[in-house]
Amino acid sequence: MVKVYVRVQLKSEILDPQGRALLGVLSRQKLSGLVDVRQGKEFVLSFEKPLTLGQIEEIEKLAGELFSNQILEDYSIQVEDES
Amino acid sequence: MVKVYVRVQLKSEILDPQGRALLGVLSRQKLSGLVDVRQGKEFVLSFEKPLTLGQIEEIEKLAGELFSNQILEDYSIQVEDES
Repeated sequence: MVKVYVRVQLKSEILDPQGRALLGVLSRQKLSGLVDVRQGKEFVLSFEKPLTLGQIEEIEKLAGELFSNQILEDYSIQVEDES
Repeated sequence: MVKVYVRVQLKSEILDPQGRALLGVLSRQKLSGLVDVRQGKEFVLSFEKPLTLGQIEEIEKLAGELFSNQILEDYSIQVEDES
């Protein structure tokens, strides 16, 4: 099984209210040195066989157009062969 | 800067309606062999200095109690020193 992780976070210059709220909660815990919290999304795509180069390019395109909003968000892609 | 990535996904035996909907959309793309899509959350915690063992244990505890719902979700933690 091949897994593709597409992770989407708001761009660093965009305010993340959920992350900010979590920072407030966490600063009451024993976490000195914590300066920022961001909340984003993770999509996990499972494939039954290794990906072709064309499929990886297609996923890259979808990550920018379907999984994320290019104006507000950044994404990263990680491919892992777990077979 | 040290970044801690806490990633939360529904347990594999729990139905993920958003992932299922994405699977339907993506099966119309050129992605043969795609068998499952899951949608989860990613929290990114930024620390200004390296973490102590106690802090890592605290984050582990929070990941199970605050970031995820232990009954429905699994989590993973990744620590990266980006300094």
